[in-house]
Amino acid sequence: MSSAVSPLAPKAVPDMPVIAGIRLATAEAGIRYKNRTDVLLAVMDKGTAVAGVFTKSKCPSAPVEWCRAKLKGGKARALVVNSGNANAFTGKTGRASTALTAKIAAKAVGCSEGEIFLASTGVIGEPLDATKFDGVLGRLAETAEPRDYLAAAKAIMTTDTFPKVATATVKLGKARVTINGMAKGAGMIAPDMATMLSFIFTDAPIAPAALQALLKSGVEDTFNAVTIDGDTSTSDTLLAFATGAAAGQGAPKISRASDPRLKAFVKAFNQVLANLAEQVARDGEGARKLVEITVEGAKTKASARKIAMSIANSPLVKTAIAGEDANWGRVVMAVGKAGEPADRDKLSISFNGIRVAKSGARDPDYDEAQVSEAMKAPEIAIKVSLGLGKGRDRVLTCDLTKEYVAINGDYRS
Amino acid sequence: MSSAVSPLAPKAVPDMPVIAGIRLATAEAGIRYKNRTDVLLAVMDKGTAVAGVFTKSKCPSAPVEWCRAKLKGGKARALVVNSGNANAFTGKTGRASTALTAKIAAKAVGCSEGEIFLASTGVIGEPLDATKFDGVLGRLAETAEPRDYLAAAKAIMTTDTFPKVATATVKLGKARVTINGMAKGAGMIAPDMATMLSFIFTDAPIAPAALQALLKSGVEDTFNAVTIDGDTSTSDTLLAFATGAAAGQGAPKISRASDPRLKAFVKAFNQVLANLAEQVARDGEGARKLVEITVEGAKTKASARKIAMSIANSPLVKTAIAGEDANWGRVVMAVGKAGEPADRDKLSISFNGIRVAKSGARDPDYDEAQVSEAMKAPEIAIKVSLGLGKGRDRVLTCDLTKEYVAINGDYRS
Repeated sequence: MSSAVSPLAPKAVPDMPVIAGIRLATAEAGIRYKNRTDVLLAVMDKGTAVAGVFTKSKCPSAPVEWCRAKLKGGKARALVVNSGNANAFTGKTGRASTALTAKIAAKAVGCSEGEIFLASTGVIGEPLDATKFDGVLGRLAETAEPRDYLAAAKAIMTTDTFPKVATATVKLGKARVTINGMAKGAGMIAPDMATMLSFIFTDAPIAPAALQALLKSGVEDTFNAVTIDGDTSTSDTLLAFATGAAAGQGAPKISRASDPRLKAFVKAFNQVLANLAEQVARDGEGARKLVEITVEGAKTKASARKIAMSIANSPLVKTAIAGEDANWGRVVMAVGKAGEPADRDKLSISFNGIRVAKSGARDPDYDEAQVSEAMKAPEIAIKVSLGLGKGRDRVLTCDLTKEYVAINGDYRS
Repeated sequence: MSSAVSPLAPKAVPDMPVIAGIRLATAEAGIRYKNRTDVLLAVMDKGTAVAGVFTKSKCPSAPVEWCRAKLKGGKARALVVNSGNANAFTGKTGRASTALTAKIAAKAVGCSEGEIFLASTGVIGEPLDATKFDGVLGRLAETAEPRDYLAAAKAIMTTDTFPKVATATVKLGKARVTINGMAKGAGMIAPDMATMLSFIFTDAPIAPAALQALLKSGVEDTFNAVTIDGDTSTSDTLLAFATGAAAGQGAPKISRASDPRLKAFVKAFNQVLANLAEQVARDGEGARKLVEITVEGAKTKASARKIAMSIANSPLVKTAIAGEDANWGRVVMAVGKAGEPADRDKLSISFNGIRVAKSGARDPDYDEAQVSEAMKAPEIAIKVSLGLGKGRDRVLTCDLTKEYVAINGDYRS
């Protein structure tokens, strides 16, 4: 397994500001990895609102079930994340393990277990020994500091090749509020599948129901519009925490997501989600190309999404891009198999702005040398125009390389 | 691109008997390949019934559209198949090309154009120059012989590594009737996608509507239960031809698929389909393992199929098998993402008869060394028991290897 940083990694890491009401600490708990941090504790001030969205898997991990249940309270005092073990498909032991972790964390932070949120990523089917958190979480709660989101992002990595953070600052009423986010993406831990975890923190005073609505809406065109291989982890978790500390600087208390005063905040919030989601695609296993697929002229946006996802998840399209081949025939194939309304004779397809097919046949002006040159770029934009309606959507993915197969198939050799 | 024969190829090729009323001939028309046959003409006696099933793609090739329209007549006198050019996504030119090919074939055989059936496989988006068939089809019609199904199967290959034929003989009334089939599978022609073509011939006297019903039913658990990469060709075509010649030997004329006299025939017919479908999986691009996925205990058969297909198409499951890793965590993931009823805590999973997970957790008796040894076999059977109902289904696939990526991504280098 290669540990080289993805060639698609962002050139710079943003400076992550402090968010009042949030303190972070990391440690080496030795859950699976050696000589690296593998536990993150985030401690939040009293009154912090929490919201979350999770994997749609019918076989979710124990921490996902824990978080879903605790979200009903709407309040969080701590987040515990470990890498190295996903605590998924661990039966009753897994449930016991989440309960014990929460108990240890609640004691360390001084809150109820219902205010503890948990996420785990790593190997599946291995019991997670929660006693390893004993002592560790107490120390972390004492030493937690408002800084160092980057260290936190590093502690939750599995086979990610770079830590993923994003930040935005925006006016809310008279106050400037901050949104910080981190994510881990399509990394891989033998013998398991990729998992996406992301955590967003803000000092904006937003009530739990409003935060939940924001998150649910924001995720639609960001994290839900990214695919690496079409596989869905049992553990995907996105949690947002709003401490409300900015109320002291004059930020209005927001109880409805539709509140017009929230407009700039929503934009910034969604930009942070989009930034992190793109970083996940940029760190797709074995990825050498970032691929943006835009479908326009579909009957509806939902139809455009389905077609874009069909293209993004097609192994034949993804291997062609790895081979720097503008193989529009495979794009037609993927449009055709999506099962959505499409008229072959109205289809147009372009790669990085160069139209290769129009009206159901090869573009007569198509210049193979020009297209081949364009396909060498590290970022490939595929645009499909269906010519049927006004539905439009965009998803991100990456290419399918031999490195993907090596990462996911070779670790026993 | 490797041209080595798949290690999963059948050890022996069956002797293909003559079918009264069918004559075959092949030629080198130079459509794309050099020094190999690329055109097949099958000539049928008057009165031959025809049935067909096709790709569900919303962007089908011109020959698929041609066949769908002509099936209404229910009668066939000739089948023309070419490899090297799929005549797909070729717009009006493509339609004109099918019309011209049919005209040439009808003249060669002496029948109406509505009795000509066409299939093309190969490069997409390139106009197919049907004038290349002029002369060729006339010669083929004159020289066509009842023998040599193997030569016919070779002429329709693209990147298939071996020709695929199957045969069965069975009693129908007092007569012995024969069923011969051929297929080409998940081969690949740069720059295009795999296409499945299959043609079945019999001397049984079966009316078109009954043959269509047989084919539609037979395909469900055979060709429709095979997946290589989840991608769907614009050109998939399965045609069946029944000359009825066995009526002369006392076979009853069958007008309904439910006719009880057809029972043994249906079984043999489905066996031929199953045999060919399995050969397609055995020749999946880059395949090193044949993978059979059985899901039982689902709510319904349809639910079991959906879950089995989710497992079969999961890149993470397929790469794990390539790596000889009994990665049941990824099987759980694929069950979970299928969206069908599943209860994590009731799941059991076995690889080649060795149970690795039960009741939602690792099997306590799991012996890694034993399982690792079993995973070295060229054929891997994954069985998933859901414990919810009586729904059961089975699909075939192959592993996902670096060779798949090489075949589909490397041809420009």
